[in-house]
Amino acid sequence: MRVLITGAAGFLGSHLCDYLISQGHSVIGMDNFITGSPENIAHLAGNPNFSFIKHDVSEYIFVPQKVDAVMHFASPASPNPASPFGYPSLPIQTMKAGALGTHNTLGVAKQFGARFLLASTSEIYGDPLEHPQKESYWGHADPIGYRSVYDEAKRFAEALTMAYHRYHNIDTRIVRIFNTYGPRMRLDDGRVVPNFINQALKKEPLTVYGDGMQTRSFCYVADLIEGIYKLLMSDEHLPVNIGNPSEISILDFAIEINGLTGNPAGIVFKKDKRLSDDPQRRQPDITRAKTILNWEPHTNLQDGLASTIAYFKQKINI
Amino acid sequence: MRVLITGAAGFLGSHLCDYLISQGHSVIGMDNFITGSPENIAHLAGNPNFSFIKHDVSEYIFVPQKVDAVMHFASPASPNPASPFGYPSLPIQTMKAGALGTHNTLGVAKQFGARFLLASTSEIYGDPLEHPQKESYWGHADPIGYRSVYDEAKRFAEALTMAYHRYHNIDTRIVRIFNTYGPRMRLDDGRVVPNFINQALKKEPLTVYGDGMQTRSFCYVADLIEGIYKLLMSDEHLPVNIGNPSEISILDFAIEINGLTGNPAGIVFKKDKRLSDDPQRRQPDITRAKTILNWEPHTNLQDGLASTIAYFKQKINI
Repeated sequence: MRVLITGAAGFLGSHLCDYLISQGHSVIGMDNFITGSPENIAHLAGNPNFSFIKHDVSEYIFVPQKVDAVMHFASPASPNPASPFGYPSLPIQTMKAGALGTHNTLGVAKQFGARFLLASTSEIYGDPLEHPQKESYWGHADPIGYRSVYDEAKRFAEALTMAYHRYHNIDTRIVRIFNTYGPRMRLDDGRVVPNFINQALKKEPLTVYGDGMQTRSFCYVADLIEGIYKLLMSDEHLPVNIGNPSEISILDFAIEINGLTGNPAGIVFKKDKRLSDDPQRRQPDITRAKTILNWEPHTNLQDGLASTIAYFKQKINI
Repeated sequence: MRVLITGAAGFLGSHLCDYLISQGHSVIGMDNFITGSPENIAHLAGNPNFSFIKHDVSEYIFVPQKVDAVMHFASPASPNPASPFGYPSLPIQTMKAGALGTHNTLGVAKQFGARFLLASTSEIYGDPLEHPQKESYWGHADPIGYRSVYDEAKRFAEALTMAYHRYHNIDTRIVRIFNTYGPRMRLDDGRVVPNFINQALKKEPLTVYGDGMQTRSFCYVADLIEGIYKLLMSDEHLPVNIGNPSEISILDFAIEINGLTGNPAGIVFKKDKRLSDDPQRRQPDITRAKTILNWEPHTNLQDGLASTIAYFKQKINI
């Protein structure tokens, strides 16, 4: 297959490029580099199965060759308002990538009769009132909160994808991606994994907000990519959660990272800076992924963190 | 002021044109007539304070003169899947009007430094779990249900409007419009008011689905328009509900219409055809409109229905 991947220079998009090429497909990558990084795909330069178009998906997309699949992964994705790469710093671009970008990429799929896969997110569940989240849960999201630029863009993108499936018979898929970590995360995107590892490698105490009892479920990127590929190859049109259901408290997570990095500086607790619509807890129910795709994550947290720490060490030259 | 009104040939848009002109403003109307009707604005032809541009708001909008305000009312709005004018029959157009149309009209407001008012909807509350609905309620909407083409487009439009307010300092307003009735509703849009009146005027029994105990809150269009105008003239940026909080059961409503039209054919009950994400009940909390805008509806149901029935009688020549 020839596959168009938007957001190809991003954390997930670049792993997806590698995986698809490893499976014998050819990839046209697309990115405008507002949050993605050329370094993530530099190793693909010269690969006959990879080509690249620098382009903003919110503008009309011209694809020079027929593609068999379109995977729309372009979007800022970090919720951290302090990071210049988080969606609170890029609100209009985030909404345009989600709405105009989904419209344009669905247009490419329609043009070529290609299958389409939307990268959606656990964020469509908002601050959920149901745990763990099944795909049938409608979510609890503030339409005008500071996260709404991402949440509502992705909810819109899902609705538009289903509309193209139902009314234009486009062969679509929707993956709802939960927290993911691994090599090629941005060091500076403000999310907890790079923040903790960065602090640990600098032998600084890890900053935990609140009491650290809030939980997260982290999926290693290789597991996630495998699940997404299985979904692409399946015939499932309704949304499928892909993520790791193992919950860990932020405090235990910090302790784990200090252990793996041999950081003696410990942990410092700071006042909870949770904003009004930040979720306290999110955990995927992956029954559908198990049943339909025969997928579940298999990388344990220690192994996943070891690879991630090795990547960050190399990046910051420690 | 010179005001651009999109959806100007629609039920609400056309009343808004009339009201703004009556208040001394001039109006540029815009519509593509996919659900709006030229008849609704025919009486404004030749009025020096009215001009019209036939245009689809999902395409780039060129406005030939500076405008002081932009009011984005263009969208299919009936949820009835049986009507060719309902949004289930126009799913992609509905999503484009909500997302691309809001993006384009916000662009016009940005270009001219104009104030902006978004016609949002009680539909953003979905099938609400809270009654009556306050503006602080986040809603309960299915992102991929058949109503999602409208609900998610409007939720997205709200989020985008707030983003333009917060990050581009656009002087925005958001009105959440609840069920409204009155002259210039489409006879054939499949909503309960035209359906009942149409049946009653033809001396047919009114069709009530289920037991008729589901309630609705109907606001007369003149009241609604007055509330929207007050919001436009206010400095309120957060969403404001405009609607009538008086609840009436569908059964009582049918009885009322049979009484006012002298229809002897009574009522026929049919099996509930409620789809999965149809709301069972929706009622505005209008505390904010009362407090901030000093607005509340004052037309009683009998008077409002009398005007509406008179309009439909004339339309269908009875």
